[in-house]
Amino acid sequence: MTEPVKVALLGCGTVGSEVTRMLLDDPGELAARVGAPVELAGIAVRRPDKHPELPQHLITSDATALIDSDVDIVVELIGGIDPVRGWLLSALRKGKSVVTGNKALLSEHASELAEAADESGADLYYEAAVAGAIPLLRPVRESLAGDRITRVMGIVNGTTNFILSAMDSTGAGYAETLDEATRLGYAEADPTADVDGYDAASKAAIIASLAFHSRVTAADVHREGIAGISSSDITAAKSLGRTVKLLSICERVTEEDGSESVSARVHPVMIPKSHQLAGVGGAFNAVYVEAEAAGQLMFYGQGAGGAPTASAVLGDLVSAARNKVAGGRGPRESAHAALPVRPMGQTPTRYHVSLDVADKPGVLAQVAQVFAAHGVSISTVRQRDRRSTASLVVVTHQAPDAALRSTVDEIDKLDVVREVISVMRVEGEAE
Amino acid sequence: MTEPVKVALLGCGTVGSEVTRMLLDDPGELAARVGAPVELAGIAVRRPDKHPELPQHLITSDATALIDSDVDIVVELIGGIDPVRGWLLSALRKGKSVVTGNKALLSEHASELAEAADESGADLYYEAAVAGAIPLLRPVRESLAGDRITRVMGIVNGTTNFILSAMDSTGAGYAETLDEATRLGYAEADPTADVDGYDAASKAAIIASLAFHSRVTAADVHREGIAGISSSDITAAKSLGRTVKLLSICERVTEEDGSESVSARVHPVMIPKSHQLAGVGGAFNAVYVEAEAAGQLMFYGQGAGGAPTASAVLGDLVSAARNKVAGGRGPRESAHAALPVRPMGQTPTRYHVSLDVADKPGVLAQVAQVFAAHGVSISTVRQRDRRSTASLVVVTHQAPDAALRSTVDEIDKLDVVREVISVMRVEGEAE
Repeated sequence: MTEPVKVALLGCGTVGSEVTRMLLDDPGELAARVGAPVELAGIAVRRPDKHPELPQHLITSDATALIDSDVDIVVELIGGIDPVRGWLLSALRKGKSVVTGNKALLSEHASELAEAADESGADLYYEAAVAGAIPLLRPVRESLAGDRITRVMGIVNGTTNFILSAMDSTGAGYAETLDEATRLGYAEADPTADVDGYDAASKAAIIASLAFHSRVTAADVHREGIAGISSSDITAAKSLGRTVKLLSICERVTEEDGSESVSARVHPVMIPKSHQLAGVGGAFNAVYVEAEAAGQLMFYGQGAGGAPTASAVLGDLVSAARNKVAGGRGPRESAHAALPVRPMGQTPTRYHVSLDVADKPGVLAQVAQVFAAHGVSISTVRQRDRRSTASLVVVTHQAPDAALRSTVDEIDKLDVVREVISVMRVEGEAE
Repeated sequence: MTEPVKVALLGCGTVGSEVTRMLLDDPGELAARVGAPVELAGIAVRRPDKHPELPQHLITSDATALIDSDVDIVVELIGGIDPVRGWLLSALRKGKSVVTGNKALLSEHASELAEAADESGADLYYEAAVAGAIPLLRPVRESLAGDRITRVMGIVNGTTNFILSAMDSTGAGYAETLDEATRLGYAEADPTADVDGYDAASKAAIIASLAFHSRVTAADVHREGIAGISSSDITAAKSLGRTVKLLSICERVTEEDGSESVSARVHPVMIPKSHQLAGVGGAFNAVYVEAEAAGQLMFYGQGAGGAPTASAVLGDLVSAARNKVAGGRGPRESAHAALPVRPMGQTPTRYHVSLDVADKPGVLAQVAQVFAAHGVSISTVRQRDRRSTASLVVVTHQAPDAALRSTVDEIDKLDVVREVISVMRVEGEAE
């Protein structure tokens, strides 16, 4: 009989309780996949008395003692940076593999954790940290390891996608829709992490690090949330055959001098209704990956929720356990390139600008002159679009974001411009 | 300096030449991912004089000698069963890892190859065998290893998808569209393997084996191709808001006695235009995976072509090379369940039947009586649909395929039925 692989679980909320259920439900099935029994050795929770549903002999409030006991793998589902960071570093340094879904921790301290894992030969897996049940990190890290990923773009935050989908279909404003999302449980009581883009930025940092074999932290990611999106923005998007999504965009870019850098950003984007990401509704996630040889790939599925996220945790747990049984470890991360991060101002983007302008001749000439003065080339102009309140709608070609930003600032000051109704970046061709 | 990992390449056609290019182009990048240099030690081709573009010192016509030299990994891109089967078994038995895209071989001899790999501790990877560049097998095998996959359904043959997409958009017949596909290079001179569903059936066998941890061979897969699809079928589908796709469908089914079995089949299916698979056009592939905890996932990308397929080969090669460097091996297959294969006749499906019937009272009653006599429940009936030539269109609820088949046979014999215009299985709800 092979020795069991012993697992410590830290945290037992929505995802943790699903993981517990899956570990206890069908141990024979898991053992067959791993090649040895998988034993849940203990569950550390802050308030043991709050968990009457769990097997009481497994519960402890002493996470440190549980980690230091003879467990082989630590599964962390508490979240946040402290005290989790110290616990996981300690586990990794002792050669215990770690499976975690902690995006905040990974987007800030991945280097330190990866180094600790490398030194002791332990595994560090975190598929659950990005896009819930969707197998994304493993394909990026392993399946595409021989290819060259150039771009990753996706919807990785379900809360904001739910809100934007609802605004698009009901025409309601942001505040009202957020209230509804909170009532339905799609948004947390304090929605800041989601609606201000912190969650999506953490995920972008994790994706960019793996995709480009470099180290990108959350602080490197340009971040704009959805709190500024108005129903005018949604209407403007609709009048162009587009919809608004909060996208995480990670790109590998070649600078003029031939050197490489990384761009990572999170902001609302108008995309054509015909774009595959436009059809991703509600709390679903979808991620496009572009690689030189593979071309365009898409991954789609549930980005959150207890059972879907637990599926990702269990996949990692099986891998870590198999490696323990085989006496090896999985592929380490390959963050060998220290690529600089291109600032948002230098990142080429395209803008959509809807303006309410004075009804007299020469207005377009004045507005166009401002674009030209900033070196921004205009793609399309529509005047007096009956489907919106705007009297002038401009979509640009690509230009550095800073140039676009200052163009809009200057246009806003023109006497002939009554109001800047909507400004938003656009992706994708069709209109 | 770490010892290089030596690679033998067998075959150098469309995919092999891309693999060669990627191996030779940026050795530093690959070495960084693997942790050691990756050295292309030799390329075995049948006719060395036909490859002036390759580095001549690498070329050999003696595959056996190349495999027997001091190479660590054998990449096989020749295809077919013999002599490849013997070569790969010999390599695996000597502890050399194998990376292959050979679906015909794997769908018939996977057990034997996996056993040889297990015995010597070598890796056997074959991501390129199914759905080209799309990372599908690794997610199924590893990311979902702790979950329970219940169903995999997808478009895994680009040639038939191109033909069906073209028939749908042009209204042209099958023979004419096949000619066009051949002219454009989307179909081979002998299109049998694609249009008769052999290729899709091999892939279904590989998918089902990995997804259900059982052993399913190509012979276990019920197979119907697209050669029988007429423009009447396409028209009938359109009149129901549907389109026709050749799908590979693998299911884990629970029998009435509680035992489990596997169903694997390839056949044309009418799916709603709103279904995500309906939008997959041209030579693209897309695969849905349903798992108990993860829910519904979708993977989308290029299913064939030199560079995309080479991307999948390189990903496997990097994994195998990393394992060599680390002294371990990747997760073995877990074909521990020997689930029986449910025959097609017992598999529940839904049928669409378009009939040209006599224009007199009581016809529907007669037809409905035949369905009832076979225990088949009708979902919808439409009479005298102006959008098609049919005068009676029936869509059933689920029933065993054999019952549906014999219902159609009996209906065809009814005096009041002038012609059975179209019979096809349907998937998905909306109409």
